[in-house]
Amino acid sequence: MKSLSQKIMSAVEAADLIKNGECIGISGFTLSGYPKAVPEALAEKAIALHQKGEPFKVTIFSGASTGDDCDGVLARAQAIEKRMPYQSNPSLRQGINQGLIQYRDEHLGSMGPMVRSGALERPTLALIECIAVTPEGKVYLSSSGGNSATYLECADRVILEVNSIYGEEYIGLHDTFIPSLPPFAKPIPICKVNDRVGSPFVQISSEKIKAIVYTERHDKVNPFTAPDEISKTIASHILDFIHFEHRQGRLPKGLSYQSGVGNVANAVLAAMAQDSRLSKVNIYTEVIQEAVLPLLQAEKLGFASGTALTLSVEAQKQVKKNISQWKDHFILRQQEISNHPEVIRRLGVISMNTALEMDLFGNVNSSHVCGSSIMNGIGGAADFARHCYLGFFMAPSVAKNGAVSAIVPLVSHVDHTDHDTMIFVTDQGVADLRGLDPITRAKLIISNCVHPSYKAELTDFLNFSINQSKKGHLPIALDKAFDMHLRFLQTGSMHK
Amino acid sequence: MKSLSQKIMSAVEAADLIKNGECIGISGFTLSGYPKAVPEALAEKAIALHQKGEPFKVTIFSGASTGDDCDGVLARAQAIEKRMPYQSNPSLRQGINQGLIQYRDEHLGSMGPMVRSGALERPTLALIECIAVTPEGKVYLSSSGGNSATYLECADRVILEVNSIYGEEYIGLHDTFIPSLPPFAKPIPICKVNDRVGSPFVQISSEKIKAIVYTERHDKVNPFTAPDEISKTIASHILDFIHFEHRQGRLPKGLSYQSGVGNVANAVLAAMAQDSRLSKVNIYTEVIQEAVLPLLQAEKLGFASGTALTLSVEAQKQVKKNISQWKDHFILRQQEISNHPEVIRRLGVISMNTALEMDLFGNVNSSHVCGSSIMNGIGGAADFARHCYLGFFMAPSVAKNGAVSAIVPLVSHVDHTDHDTMIFVTDQGVADLRGLDPITRAKLIISNCVHPSYKAELTDFLNFSINQSKKGHLPIALDKAFDMHLRFLQTGSMHK
Repeated sequence: MKSLSQKIMSAVEAADLIKNGECIGISGFTLSGYPKAVPEALAEKAIALHQKGEPFKVTIFSGASTGDDCDGVLARAQAIEKRMPYQSNPSLRQGINQGLIQYRDEHLGSMGPMVRSGALERPTLALIECIAVTPEGKVYLSSSGGNSATYLECADRVILEVNSIYGEEYIGLHDTFIPSLPPFAKPIPICKVNDRVGSPFVQISSEKIKAIVYTERHDKVNPFTAPDEISKTIASHILDFIHFEHRQGRLPKGLSYQSGVGNVANAVLAAMAQDSRLSKVNIYTEVIQEAVLPLLQAEKLGFASGTALTLSVEAQKQVKKNISQWKDHFILRQQEISNHPEVIRRLGVISMNTALEMDLFGNVNSSHVCGSSIMNGIGGAADFARHCYLGFFMAPSVAKNGAVSAIVPLVSHVDHTDHDTMIFVTDQGVADLRGLDPITRAKLIISNCVHPSYKAELTDFLNFSINQSKKGHLPIALDKAFDMHLRFLQTGSMHK
Repeated sequence: MKSLSQKIMSAVEAADLIKNGECIGISGFTLSGYPKAVPEALAEKAIALHQKGEPFKVTIFSGASTGDDCDGVLARAQAIEKRMPYQSNPSLRQGINQGLIQYRDEHLGSMGPMVRSGALERPTLALIECIAVTPEGKVYLSSSGGNSATYLECADRVILEVNSIYGEEYIGLHDTFIPSLPPFAKPIPICKVNDRVGSPFVQISSEKIKAIVYTERHDKVNPFTAPDEISKTIASHILDFIHFEHRQGRLPKGLSYQSGVGNVANAVLAAMAQDSRLSKVNIYTEVIQEAVLPLLQAEKLGFASGTALTLSVEAQKQVKKNISQWKDHFILRQQEISNHPEVIRRLGVISMNTALEMDLFGNVNSSHVCGSSIMNGIGGAADFARHCYLGFFMAPSVAKNGAVSAIVPLVSHVDHTDHDTMIFVTDQGVADLRGLDPITRAKLIISNCVHPSYKAELTDFLNFSINQSKKGHLPIALDKAFDMHLRFLQTGSMHK
């Protein structure tokens, strides 16, 4: 049996172990903790083979999105046959929208169990970034949990990228726990955000390790941009609403927060750091993002649990400097646990996610522009929206200089049905939809959330629908439902 | 303090305790265990008041649907202001679709926690059918669990209908357990279908009991109709698929079954009773329906857990005769538990629900005809579809003598997004959608599930969409997406 040191090799040599047609399970979640050197080498291998007229494509299962030095290079090399369950890379997105790459957009919390149960293809190779590996097969993951433990378990062959940008002081961040599959599953014993129920490493048979590649590379995360005025307005609407609910006795103390990725979500976290009405904040989320650091610095962060620590290069350096002091505030879990319905519902999560568009009846589109062209994917929004204690969907009321309204008669693609949405927020205001019938919802959304320049058209649509559909609980004129989208596709603006 | 016997009164006297504008939490789930005498008296009271020009309307929160002697009489008396979370009564449906009654269609498993958390109005009065009540305030529920325990807890005033059609031998069927709300929630300790974790009664303060009305009335459930050929074909497709999955090693033994209400679901259960390949069957569902009895008689029923025992009058009599012998096979839980994501996901449920329509991309409509007119509601289908181990949505490929196709380009209302659906089944065949990208899904559904008379139109739609949307992961021509629905609205047929 080879010792680990005998398995150390270059990225090019490791990429040579990957076969055409394989399904590869990789680490990485929203540009954190993904493999970097081997994907680059694999892309070069694919290009070389293609130039010789030989086929080379692989299926890639990940945690979520990865950096351009993984998804981007592989997409441009036409080396991806199929990709799951999430992406956000421009080259990969283009390949998907051109029909060159198959893509299945899956709930992030469901991907792991679907692989383990055999509902999806079984990855034959795991390509995982880590901080360290021991001769006994203890793998210490880097900046994300993702589905790494599942892929390490399922695959027969393992390639590890040991990234020295971290260091042993990062060990202990992870809590890796994978529940048994039915019918042998037991309760997941997490009752508080900071409960540790698993192990700081993933245990595998060291015989499965076929290559160890040393790297020293940062996650390629874009710098944090300060919130704009629109985002700040949305953030203040949300915090005011939360405080109102507290005062009404409808929101107990001790719940946790989840926030999606993006500018508006960042603005909410930034506003929380400055909000004197809030004391300690606990976070149970997917992505612990840069905006959590101001909370930490303001001594307002109780604890943050997520599956990824997604930070700009500057912030990665800042965390590294303070890791021993800050480590006690963080846990990284597998995404099956960070996004698990059981835990989310039990803890009581206040959930805040960004919508691409929302409609008059409470449906939300998170993924497809005009129904067809994918942006990123549903991600984990639905894991939280369905199971949260209180849930917000938020968006600026208009985009593209007013040419696009975030509120439309009917969303062109439904990611979250009206059953899974509670509160809509735009810069215009807040609509609390809980318990309301469809017509009351529609009127409230028009009144509170729609940009003034679109109120007339949406009101006309609603009135026309009510008059046309004399018998209808949810009056909707199907022949006019997509008029605003069709106008946008033809003229570049939803305006008449 | 009054003794219980001093609170015994007529239904008319009890109805007099109910005030205009009140929110009433009632027992009952799919025509099982709902109050009967007081609603009838309340309807008469409302009619009399309306004749005098006085207003009288109430909000009704239930478990799910109730009989015509509850929802029907109250709807016809124009006594309902608002109704949640489910219904199936023709008069009530008509009132909702005419805009006379507000209706909010909620996930059945979410209704209880939303009431308890204050996200919804708090019922001020609970009107609950039971088998018995003790002076210490122990209430023994009748043929359904529903949200009765929650309403009994939240309401300040309680009216009980003690229905002598049952008898003390029914005591012990129920297992009533209500989890604490976050942030104090703990794991729900159910790991097997037949785990009992609560109490056979609901404990309340007997001071809250304001009226006890004695009744002797059956639940008004329609007789069971034998499965037709189409339903039998669908059932055999499902069972063949399940056995195929078993043989592939993708479906472990020991999972449980859930089936929705209706003819097709009944046909599946009937087919299971006759399927020699199946040994014992365990059921974790909402509604334990009549078709479970053949399983019991064939000695194939291991255990059935649900929130309602919904039987025709004939079957109610049959169960009564055998209750002491059969009781050990059944548990009735509160619907918050029968439909709880945590328990469904942990047990591993094979879920089978009926669709109103399904689309080429995997979305399902369970509730609204042509997007507007409500049939019943989403019910608990989404509680199971999202969290099951393996999930089927099924429907006859055509309805109304072929004028309606169950598969459409885009459903006119989305209750279950493509993220929450796995297997589509019609009499034509089975489409396993797991892990497939949108175009592959669409082609497979057309090939395997669409009725031959609609294949050409749906293929044309898909091809047109792919050609029109050159850049699109999910190619959909929004201007033609509802053509089949619009044609049906205009001509009475989806056919060209």
